[in-house]
This record gives sequence, C-alpha cells and structure tokens, in this order.
Amino acid sequence: MAQKPSIPKGTRDFGPAEMIKRNYIFSTIQKVFIKYGYQPIETPAMENLSTLMGKYGEEGDKLLFKILNSGDFLSKADDALLEEKNSLKISTQISEKGLRYDLTVPFARFVVQHRNELSFPFKRYQMQPVWRADRPQKGRYREFFQCDVDVVGSDSLLNELDLIRMMDEVFRLLKINVVIKMNNRKILSGIAQAIGAPEKMMDITMAMDKLDKVGAEKVYAELHDRGISDDAIEKLKPVLKLQGGNCMRLEVLEDLIGDTPDGATGLKEVREILDYLSAFTLESEVEVDQTLARGLNYYTGAIFEVKAADVKIGSICGGGRYDNLTGIFGLPGVSGVGVSFGADRIYDVLTELNLFPSEAASATRVLILNFGDKETSYALSVLQQLQQEGISSEFYPDTVKIKKQMKYADQKNIPFVIMIGEEEMESGALTLKNMTTGVQDKYVVEEIIKHVKK
Amino acid sequence: MAQKPSIPKGTRDFGPAEMIKRNYIFSTIQKVFIKYGYQPIETPAMENLSTLMGKYGEEGDKLLFKILNSGDFLSKADDALLEEKNSLKISTQISEKGLRYDLTVPFARFVVQHRNELSFPFKRYQMQPVWRADRPQKGRYREFFQCDVDVVGSDSLLNELDLIRMMDEVFRLLKINVVIKMNNRKILSGIAQAIGAPEKMMDITMAMDKLDKVGAEKVYAELHDRGISDDAIEKLKPVLKLQGGNCMRLEVLEDLIGDTPDGATGLKEVREILDYLSAFTLESEVEVDQTLARGLNYYTGAIFEVKAADVKIGSICGGGRYDNLTGIFGLPGVSGVGVSFGADRIYDVLTELNLFPSEAASATRVLILNFGDKETSYALSVLQQLQQEGISSEFYPDTVKIKKQMKYADQKNIPFVIMIGEEEMESGALTLKNMTTGVQDKYVVEEIIKHVKK
Repeated sequence: MAQKPSIPKGTRDFGPAEMIKRNYIFSTIQKVFIKYGYQPIETPAMENLSTLMGKYGEEGDKLLFKILNSGDFLSKADDALLEEKNSLKISTQISEKGLRYDLTVPFARFVVQHRNELSFPFKRYQMQPVWRADRPQKGRYREFFQCDVDVVGSDSLLNELDLIRMMDEVFRLLKINVVIKMNNRKILSGIAQAIGAPEKMMDITMAMDKLDKVGAEKVYAELHDRGISDDAIEKLKPVLKLQGGNCMRLEVLEDLIGDTPDGATGLKEVREILDYLSAFTLESEVEVDQTLARGLNYYTGAIFEVKAADVKIGSICGGGRYDNLTGIFGLPGVSGVGVSFGADRIYDVLTELNLFPSEAASATRVLILNFGDKETSYALSVLQQLQQEGISSEFYPDTVKIKKQMKYADQKNIPFVIMIGEEEMESGALTLKNMTTGVQDKYVVEEIIKHVKK
Repeated sequence: MAQKPSIPKGTRDFGPAEMIKRNYIFSTIQKVFIKYGYQPIETPAMENLSTLMGKYGEEGDKLLFKILNSGDFLSKADDALLEEKNSLKISTQISEKGLRYDLTVPFARFVVQHRNELSFPFKRYQMQPVWRADRPQKGRYREFFQCDVDVVGSDSLLNELDLIRMMDEVFRLLKINVVIKMNNRKILSGIAQAIGAPEKMMDITMAMDKLDKVGAEKVYAELHDRGISDDAIEKLKPVLKLQGGNCMRLEVLEDLIGDTPDGATGLKEVREILDYLSAFTLESEVEVDQTLARGLNYYTGAIFEVKAADVKIGSICGGGRYDNLTGIFGLPGVSGVGVSFGADRIYDVLTELNLFPSEAASATRVLILNFGDKETSYALSVLQQLQQEGISSEFYPDTVKIKKQMKYADQKNIPFVIMIGEEEMESGALTLKNMTTGVQDKYVVEEIIKHVKK
C-alpha cells in the first residue's frame, strides 16, 4: 500500500476556489499600491542566517526555519558538541540559511545591498509568503502571506498620509468597514515622561497595549508588578481612561503630556497628519488611540493598526514609522514608514461577511459539451471563435455521458454550456444553456458571444 | 562595523525593473491558461520529505533542500551515527521537511490528497518558485520559477491539442518565434522494437536525445558503449538521419516502425493531434521530431519541447503525457498531460531580443513636484483627482531641490511631471512636462487627465 500523502502541519494547499478568492484580495491590494506609485520587489525565500538571527528577539530566533547545509554537513561539526547533543550550538555549524520570517528584515537588507541602484525615497511593495515555526493553531499558520508597503528615505509625514489613504482605499474596495487606529511612539514616551517614569516607557507601553483585551484593572496590576510606582499609576489613569473624538482626546493629551519634549512632538505630528487628512473624504474612521503600541519596539514615530468593525478578529493591517531599520546592516539615518496587510485574516473577514464577489467563483465562462467524434471539429471551431473573443472556454475532452459533463460544469461553476449535436451543426443554431437560470435556447455563435460577454 | 549584507549564492533579489518585466511574462502566460479553462492552485513551499524523496532519482535526493527540525532536533538522533558523522543517515533523523524541487510531484500529491473535492478532468496551472541545491552557474539558480499547466483524468488527445495551442498563443503574445517539437514515447519504443532491441529502449532514447548537441557519430559511439549491437545501430541510422516535413517523416517512420505495436499506436496518436491542429492557424511551426525524449522517463505518450528560433538557448518550455504520476501516492490509473514554461529562460530571450514592451518600464504615470508647504494642500487635491481617475500618481514627499525631484522622476521612468507654484495656483493652469519629449505646457487638471491617459 502506498503512503497516504499529507503536508507539513501548519501549511496549506490552496485549491482553485480559494486561489481565486485569494487572488481577488492580492490584486485589490496591489492595484492600490500601484496607484500610489509603489513598486514591487521580491527577495529570496532563503536568507543567510547572519541576516536573520538576532533581529526578532530570542524567541524569534527559535522560530526560524533553518536549512540543512548540503553535502557532508557533519564533517565540519564540532565533535564535543555532537557528543553532548547540543542542538542549539550544532545548528549554527550545520546550517547557514533560513527561511524568511517576515518581509521587513529582508527589505532592510535589500535596501542596504542595492542602495546605489535605488532612487530615494524608495517606495516598494512586497507580497510573499513567510515562515515561522510557531505552534500551529486556528488562524495561525507556519507558512502565511504578508503584503507589505513601505517608503524609506523620507521623513515627511506626507508618507503617513499616503499610507492611511491606501489603507482606507483597500478596505473600501474590499467593502470591509474598518477603524484605522493611529498613535505615535513619541506620545507613548511623552506619557512615560509625564508620569515621572521615563525609563519605564517600554513596560508602560506593553502593559497599556493590553487594555482592550484585559481591562484597566489588570493593566494597573501589571504596571505595579513591573515596578511602576503607585503615584505614577495614578497619574496614568486619566490617560488610560481617555475616550472620545480625536479633537477632544488631543486636547486632553495636550494638558497631560504637552509639556514633555517627546509628548509635544508626538502631538504635533498627529495633528499634522490629521490636518492633511481633512482634505480627503475617507470611508473609514481614523481614530487617535494613545494606548496603541503594537508590541514591536522598533517604531519611532507613527503607529497604525486597522480593525474590522463588524468581525471579532485581531488587527487586519498595521505598521508604523521606524527611523533606523537599515542601521543593523550598516546604513544609518534612513527613515522609513510602512504597513503590512494580513491576507489570511482579511480572507477570514471576507468569508464571514460573505463579501467575496460572485465573479470570484470561476474563471471559465463556457463549456462546450462533447457529443462525439462526428461533432468534434465543429465544436473546436466554435471553441476557437469564443477564445478569440477573449472568452475563457473549454471543450470537454472525453466522449462520456452528458450527465457527467453537466456535473463537471456544475462543480466548476461554469455559467454557460453549449450543446452541438447533428441538428445544431446543420442549422448553425447552437443550444446555449444558462446554468444559473436553467433556461436554454438556440443561437448562432455571434449571438452566443454577445450573451456570454454579459 | 556592521556586516555587509548578501544573499545565499544561486538566489536573486528582484528589483522593480525586473519585477515589472517578470510580471509581464507571468501575467501573459496566466491569461492564456485562464482562457483555456485552467484553474490556479498553490502548494506549500515545504513538503514532507517522505513526499519528495525517491521521486527524482538518487541525484535529485541530494539536491533537495532539507529543513532542520525545530527545537532539540539532536535528542532523537542515533549516537553511533553521530559519532561516525554519517551525514546522509543523520539527515533523515534531524529533518522531516524539504523545499519543493518541482511542481509536478507536489501536484500529484495534491491530486491524490484532494481527489474527493476535485472535478475531473482537473485542469490546473501553478506558478511558484522551486529550489534545488545545484551548483549555481550562468542561467542556473537555486531558487527559480516554474509555470506548469496540466490536465489529469482524461486520456483524450484533445488535451494535447489544447496544450499546443496554448504554447503557440503564449509565445505569439510574447512575440517570440518558436518551434514546437513533438514526439511520442510510443514512437521511441517502436524504434527500439523495430531495430530488435526492445529492452534497450531507455539506452537508445538517452543516446538519441543528445543528437542535437553532439552529432550522429558520437551518438553511434554511445550506443555501442551501451551495448547496442552493430546491426541494431545500422538499422537505427535512417531513423536518426530522418529530416524534413512532418508528412514525409511520418511516412518514412511508418515504413520503419509501423509494424511494431507501439510504433503503430504512437504514429496514430501523432497523426490525430496533427489532424486536430490542421483546423487552427498557428503562428509557430509544430515539428515532429522522432529523436526528442527530454530525458525524463515518466512520459508515456506525447512529448513536447519548445525552442526559440532566434536565440541560442536551451528549451523554453516542455512536457508531455504521463500515465501514472499519481500512482506513487496510491492512486493508479489517472492519466495526465502537461507542460512547464521556463520563466527565467523566457526572460533571457525577451531581454536578448529586446522584446519587453515599453509600458513594462514603470507603473507611475505622474509625479507632482513638491514646491513647499504653501503649495502642499493644492498639490494634494490634484493628486486626489488624478488617482480618482485611476492614474498612478505620486506627490514628492520632501521639500528638496527641484533638480533632485526631477532626477527621481527620471530614474523611476515616470513619463509626466506636474509643477504647481504660486502662479499655477492662482490661474489653475498647471505646468505639465512630458519627460519623454521634454515639452512642457500649461493645462487645467481636466486637460492633464486626458493627456496623461493618452
């Protein structure tokens, strides 16, 4: 008995129905990227481990998929380490490459490596899979897709404006109602400064970031555990509790942190972005959220996160500004800002809200049934005429029962079927069946073409 | 000093200029696939090694990129094997997954695994990278892209017709002159039968396949070395020497091998395909080549290979029929036929013949120059109007010297630049510069839109 085939856990096959839906998402996002002047790049699936290691924290290093060196990989491995079965240290001796973990680090590497060929500001998008050896669970995969859009080499807040407009346009086109949340790292450090705990900025941020999930009381407890004084926590409470419209929030924040150097700059930047935005009619609400941090500590300015309004699911897009991403590869002083669209979660949202367009169901418009050898050459000439008009069409290749052929059309969601028997060949009027309505009638080829083209 | 970033040898970064050209190739091929009713699928980059091993011969197994198991991978490794540093045997204990080597084996695995969800005949295409730990050299990469199109579950030669028409259409659209060579495995075995060496079919085939490269004399020598009798070689000579048009070739072959069972079937199949083809006007020449074998021994019927007529390069597309691909995964009796387009070689051909369309050069149509804060909100409103018309446009984000902004437009091949200064804001007549002709003139936004849309 042959082996039963399967795929590695946490990975997925995408069949035609899923592919057509996924392509709808990717092409919608891509269309917007292009419209705003962003250009595509692609980087290899494998990067040198020296590029990847140490960029995602200790936990991230463990989640990298490492590729075994080719050939006699053990020959150079250290005998003592092998004997003590030291997997961690041996791995660096038998593996030099890993699968990319995200698109950000490869992008930074790309910018530094090709800096002399690029024109800055460099606006790029990148839509490729990434791999993480995470424990697979519902909605979390070991191979998943990221759609990143970034601009590097420009400090201007007009880039933040671009990104917000792009997020708005993508979700407008996909018909998903969203809230775009915005914060600024400088507001977060202004808060830490204002409550008298500037050196605790990361602790405060990480606790505050959980507000949505765990509620205020637990955040206070965590802050306490992280060594924030009661006095400082007391001062933080109005910041945590602050709700309401952007104007009101900004006014209150001005009172609370406007006197701190970072707080003042952060508020000024947020106001400038909102000011630019006021000239545009957005579909989505842009909401200033002073507690938003998105965990990652490489953001230095704006922070963005997009939530679907009608579905309970994590963020479906997010990002921010980072002032020194390329510094790790020896090119300091290149500021960048970008966001990443989560294709898998967007897929889940569109599925739950039943928002995939029906055209996304099938590509083939017409199936010509196969009545047998006698009718074949006639059918082929009709096939050719349809295809010359750009109509996706097929001629069923085997002479099998008509019922089976109809089932094929049905399963493949093909909207039209043409039947050509002896009578049709003589008269030139072919039987066209609309598979949606069930109606069938006779037409000459030219009429069929008009019909099928909608 | 930070590390100098690089990528693994044999892999490539694709910058915007290359991406736009590559996307032109992929989208052209894809358009044809869709028009003929083929549907997309994608499989994971990683497959279980049990799926991949043993499918590509001993050499192929060595060329698989293997992925190190996560966590404490050495804990289960055999002590004795570790001590003797047996890389080959240890690799199976510390690695369970590998990167896909081609798209054919994952496709076979996919068909078997999902057979109950698919409707047969299943017509699929797949465009994804594959990885091979080959020695990198000019034109040979460790990560490269395959574009495969196959139909499984149908014996009909109408599928071969489909594939030939698709190859013809792809290269017609790409404007590459090609010769489509066709043979049949049954003709090859008929030849072996006819010269009295049926058991030597693979040896004869492999020697004959080199005719183009090494010439007839060397083929005779190799046949001799492979143990073919002088008598049989003598009988083979007319087959090797056979040239000329398809009709003539088929007649001569009929005389030579028409009496063998396989030869008769093979010739009948080739004639039937040519007969179907006669109803269509192809751009490319379809040439019967009785020596074509394409190395791979899993073909059981038709064999195809496409050569560029005007560039010296290996085949740019090839494939054939295989009667038992899914058998290795426990599903016998599913016949399939398909071809694979070599995107990298097609890229090289288009480059050498200078056949990339000029639209493939840039995506952004318009750059609005940044004159400063005073002009920004006016410029943004123009940007919005252009984008609402679907025109890819950018507003330069930084207030830097105009010369630098013009250079950016130039490097990015942006065809139009708009200048908005004080005068333009007052009059509403904006300065539009055509970057190709150098001509600049003043227009209102509506005129600019017409202009830029061409």
